[in-house]
Amino acid sequence: MTIRLSALTLGTVCAGLCLGAATNARADEGMWLYNRFPAEKLEKAHGFKPDRAWLDAVRLASVRLENGCSGSFVSANGLVMTNHHCAQECIEQLSTPKKDLMNDGFWAKGPADEAKCPEIALDTLTAIDDVTARVQKVRAGKDDKDGQAAVRSEIAQIEADCQKKPGLKCEVVSLYNGGIYDLYTYERHGDVRLVFAPEFRIAFFGGDPDNFEFPRYDLDVSFLRAYGPDGKPLSTPNHLAFSPDGPDVRKEGQLAFVSGHPGTTRRLLTVSEIETWRDSGIIPRLMYMEELRGGLLEYAHRGKEQARHSLGELLGIENSLKATKGELDALIDPAVLTLKRDEEKALRAYVAADKARQSAFGGAWDAIAGAMQVQRRTYMRHYLVEVGRGFRSRLFEHARTLVRAAEEMPKPAEQRLREFTAGELDGLKQGLFSKAPTYAEFEIFDLAWSLQKMREVLGADDPFVKEVLGKESPQQLADRVIKGTKLGDPKERQRLFDGGAKVLATSKDPLIELARRVDPAARAVRKQWEDEVEAVVNKNHESIAKVRFEKDGTSVYPDATFTLRLSYGTVKGYSEDGHAVAPYTNLGGAFERHTGADPFMLPPSWLKKKASLDLSLPFNLVTDNDIVGGNSGSPVLDQNRRAIGLIFDGNIQSLGGDYGFDPAVNRAVAVDTRALVHTLEKIYGADRLVKELRETK
Amino acid sequence: MTIRLSALTLGTVCAGLCLGAATNARADEGMWLYNRFPAEKLEKAHGFKPDRAWLDAVRLASVRLENGCSGSFVSANGLVMTNHHCAQECIEQLSTPKKDLMNDGFWAKGPADEAKCPEIALDTLTAIDDVTARVQKVRAGKDDKDGQAAVRSEIAQIEADCQKKPGLKCEVVSLYNGGIYDLYTYERHGDVRLVFAPEFRIAFFGGDPDNFEFPRYDLDVSFLRAYGPDGKPLSTPNHLAFSPDGPDVRKEGQLAFVSGHPGTTRRLLTVSEIETWRDSGIIPRLMYMEELRGGLLEYAHRGKEQARHSLGELLGIENSLKATKGELDALIDPAVLTLKRDEEKALRAYVAADKARQSAFGGAWDAIAGAMQVQRRTYMRHYLVEVGRGFRSRLFEHARTLVRAAEEMPKPAEQRLREFTAGELDGLKQGLFSKAPTYAEFEIFDLAWSLQKMREVLGADDPFVKEVLGKESPQQLADRVIKGTKLGDPKERQRLFDGGAKVLATSKDPLIELARRVDPAARAVRKQWEDEVEAVVNKNHESIAKVRFEKDGTSVYPDATFTLRLSYGTVKGYSEDGHAVAPYTNLGGAFERHTGADPFMLPPSWLKKKASLDLSLPFNLVTDNDIVGGNSGSPVLDQNRRAIGLIFDGNIQSLGGDYGFDPAVNRAVAVDTRALVHTLEKIYGADRLVKELRETK
Repeated sequence: MTIRLSALTLGTVCAGLCLGAATNARADEGMWLYNRFPAEKLEKAHGFKPDRAWLDAVRLASVRLENGCSGSFVSANGLVMTNHHCAQECIEQLSTPKKDLMNDGFWAKGPADEAKCPEIALDTLTAIDDVTARVQKVRAGKDDKDGQAAVRSEIAQIEADCQKKPGLKCEVVSLYNGGIYDLYTYERHGDVRLVFAPEFRIAFFGGDPDNFEFPRYDLDVSFLRAYGPDGKPLSTPNHLAFSPDGPDVRKEGQLAFVSGHPGTTRRLLTVSEIETWRDSGIIPRLMYMEELRGGLLEYAHRGKEQARHSLGELLGIENSLKATKGELDALIDPAVLTLKRDEEKALRAYVAADKARQSAFGGAWDAIAGAMQVQRRTYMRHYLVEVGRGFRSRLFEHARTLVRAAEEMPKPAEQRLREFTAGELDGLKQGLFSKAPTYAEFEIFDLAWSLQKMREVLGADDPFVKEVLGKESPQQLADRVIKGTKLGDPKERQRLFDGGAKVLATSKDPLIELARRVDPAARAVRKQWEDEVEAVVNKNHESIAKVRFEKDGTSVYPDATFTLRLSYGTVKGYSEDGHAVAPYTNLGGAFERHTGADPFMLPPSWLKKKASLDLSLPFNLVTDNDIVGGNSGSPVLDQNRRAIGLIFDGNIQSLGGDYGFDPAVNRAVAVDTRALVHTLEKIYGADRLVKELRETK
Repeated sequence: MTIRLSALTLGTVCAGLCLGAATNARADEGMWLYNRFPAEKLEKAHGFKPDRAWLDAVRLASVRLENGCSGSFVSANGLVMTNHHCAQECIEQLSTPKKDLMNDGFWAKGPADEAKCPEIALDTLTAIDDVTARVQKVRAGKDDKDGQAAVRSEIAQIEADCQKKPGLKCEVVSLYNGGIYDLYTYERHGDVRLVFAPEFRIAFFGGDPDNFEFPRYDLDVSFLRAYGPDGKPLSTPNHLAFSPDGPDVRKEGQLAFVSGHPGTTRRLLTVSEIETWRDSGIIPRLMYMEELRGGLLEYAHRGKEQARHSLGELLGIENSLKATKGELDALIDPAVLTLKRDEEKALRAYVAADKARQSAFGGAWDAIAGAMQVQRRTYMRHYLVEVGRGFRSRLFEHARTLVRAAEEMPKPAEQRLREFTAGELDGLKQGLFSKAPTYAEFEIFDLAWSLQKMREVLGADDPFVKEVLGKESPQQLADRVIKGTKLGDPKERQRLFDGGAKVLATSKDPLIELARRVDPAARAVRKQWEDEVEAVVNKNHESIAKVRFEKDGTSVYPDATFTLRLSYGTVKGYSEDGHAVAPYTNLGGAFERHTGADPFMLPPSWLKKKASLDLSLPFNLVTDNDIVGGNSGSPVLDQNRRAIGLIFDGNIQSLGGDYGFDPAVNRAVAVDTRALVHTLEKIYGADRLVKELRETK
């Protein structure tokens, strides 16, 4: 369903690393919870112990973008620093044939020029409450499937109760794979405006070839501003001080914190889950993405406008592709899986050593392995039919949301599909009623391509495929439904949503008709997935989590879940193929790397202003913080809570980070705040912005 | 280098299967050598024992197409039956913007209308001589690298001696991975003309979705005719009788032979070789092909002519893609690798049980595993830089051939690169001086795409990549060299070839310049590959082959090597997902499957003539013969040496056939000769052809 969101969420940015098992965190490994931060461990390693006030202040200055990124408040007036690629969807949506903001960049000279992003919303985490007992209780005495349904319903209820105060977003999150359930309460800000974005050419200098590489020369930054319901800039007293001085370059090893929302890691998964994900998830998805990438690259040859319309999707796919290849490389390395196998063996031996423990928990691994057999068979069907990757079209996504809304909205909140529950509804409506443009030609390309791919993967004789295509080819079907639909108009979507089941049932819109035809099968595969995979996995992971707690307590960190985490590390080079990689690059390096041909082409503004720049200034840098995709836009802080950098990537070695962390070579890549301020001043003349940043304390 | 040929050679068609290890051939498994055919085994299983005359006659009626296919003489006047997809390159090359033979089909009404194929050559196997002792002797006492060089030189010498008589093609082939070296002498026929081809829509009805599937409804046939040096149809007294009656449908289990040239199997490889091939060969190649496929599908949207120019490459890539996915599926199945591991363990235990044997052969597996470490690191570089997949352009291929010819041709034959040795030279020249058209726009697309892919895989900072691209983008480079080259003219290629090193050195042709720039690195990676991978692998495979012979003799068959093999089996259905798949489809089924939208669209000729057809006639059928890619175009024979069918595919279950054969579900797919004759008569009015076929005895 949420094609665009997921394209960003999944592997948006980078990935921690690979060789240390999560249960034996070494060096500065760890994506720590704010309410379970190992301050003493940090003090032992680096001689600094943050207190509660320090942690609370950083937490409240941290921002989550609902599209799958992180950011931070860097002034008292709602100014948010994040990556260019985190605001990219907004930058594209605000572009027109005459004004291409990806190419030109954007700078709001005056406050009134700040431009509303149609689909960006920000969350700040204001409270964490433990609801583990309440959630786990409802599972007791039920079989996997009923237990899971009860858990889902209880979670929706907890969220709905919390949600009653307006302006909140409440989420029950599962940590340690069900070992702990916490209710996260966020303040939600749906009015977010674009303040500044550089040209895409420098934000993503080096393009896909340099993505996940270092040395690097990218100004991957954007500034947004959160506005309140009153239409005025949000007051954000809890903000970071912005330091224009970057980290201390005189010594390696400056302590650096990263506060952000790592999306997904798989460090606590069982071996059968990892192998199943590799074989029936990673590999077919790689093939899906590779073909789509080939199509998108060539689609851009249709013309300049077509290139503009398809660029965002291309970037998302290329990014996921490179990240996922890194993931596969890690799982092809026999050392990684051997380590996972050894770790699992040890944990199972610990269980088997005690009769009661064995009887309570010993079956968990085999039960999960059984569910993995179902996952192997159904993963791609679920991905194509329910996740929607067989129906790549923003308008189809709207059609499905409308078809489902008509059925779900009349139900009590706790019985609805997850995306219609209280905590999710604001986000769903923001997307559904967005005024962002859609482009019919591109919608047709994307839908036809994905229908064809679905036919290939599921087979031409699959009953669902036959039901969808009938006598039409993928191209004919896509042509007909996109040309015939009226869902491009947000008012029509609003009308159908407001009209509910009665109005919807009479709609002859071809996309609505298609979504109606698809929905029973999509719901069926979702149900099978929830009952036969998720229910079994969640229930048994709770068991394994209990064993882990019994053995190690919560001295370890849970897998990433797109919840706020704090990692610590140091600015630090590394060694690659026997040669040393220094921790900093400088502005001059970008000019040396400039060839004049994309993606190694600096924007005209940079070429013009070269003489006025201090080319020796640090530009990008690496730290050994443990981060993954979702950390994009996270601030790098010093121990005085000053922003000294802006995370935008991980190095190539970090791409196995879903499975573990290798402190020797895993690196987070950031923009140095020195280069940031210097280029804002010298190249972009963004004086108002620089003044606001410099004034923060 | 040989992009187009290899695209057909690799996985052109189908693949035997997977669960039986080659050393324990079960049921009707086996791709048997004509000079080591297990006649008694066959008699025991099926009550028929072919004698030497029977085998010689079938061998001499069998034809190898140098593009990677098989065929057979089916009249005394050089008439050859093969697949449409085996003559596809010719059909495309004879097409023009005004006359698209892929769309329209081709039928030479009179003998004078038979149209010369620019690049098709046929070989018939006239002699097999054992040269094992001569080849193995030269390796003795040398290290791996020098031994391999000596073997290569000795082979080139043997071939050159044999080649002296004109019209021959002499090949020393390695069987049982170096256990036996045989000199194969072929008569070569370079004047081959197109007689008949149906429309692509029925030759490949169901397209990629139905490829490797069954039930099936394809008329995948073409008829060619070999001409002699006198320009007259070749006299071919050794031909098959063509039976218009197909197999006996009244009973399952009719004995069926397939005579053809299976290309590559890996049933005798060590486990380290299989794993290395999976991880560093199959997976990155799949990703390469997927992206290219996406690009090609969208390239066809540029226009009708562009679609025509790119169709052949698209078909080749889609075919390889599906075949390679099947191969990967086999290697992801834990059962397959477990079986391979067990088999290897047993063989190594047999070696270890004897001290002298262990000392002579015990190190072979580890030595190969060592070479596989090099293969893992270098496979993709070799594939892109030397095999040429980073330079997809027919014109670049010509440029490289010219650059190398200038250097190689002055050398003694046995010291040249393999493709310039005596046995290969006729084929090389036929390609180089071909009058087939090239299309600049498509060449640019293909070259730019592959340069970009090479940059991605090797890295933007790779010295070779930087040397090739300089300051240009892949698109800019491709534009410049294709627009600037004169190599599109075969006369210019002839001039540069004839001129030799002196003329070539002064050429300012941008493609020649590019090929010159590329060549040192390409030769270096080839040399590394030959010295550090091939030399070690070949030497140690010879050892393993000796062990196998000692243990099992030559009662087993060697891995496929694109040499002539005879397999036996029966017409036989199978069971899939619990339901029975009948062995025959009929003509009526094609009309039921017709939707009117490609690829499920019958050609107008079929729709028009539907009423005159006997729709109950068998159309396609399956047998349990053990075949793989390269068997395309092989005749299916009964025991009276009559052609009763025409192999064109394997079923999806057969795609793991590189690693073993599963008699329960592996099936070869063929056109029934009944449908063939019936449609030639009723739809195409090809009376002259039908008469010629019916007259064969």
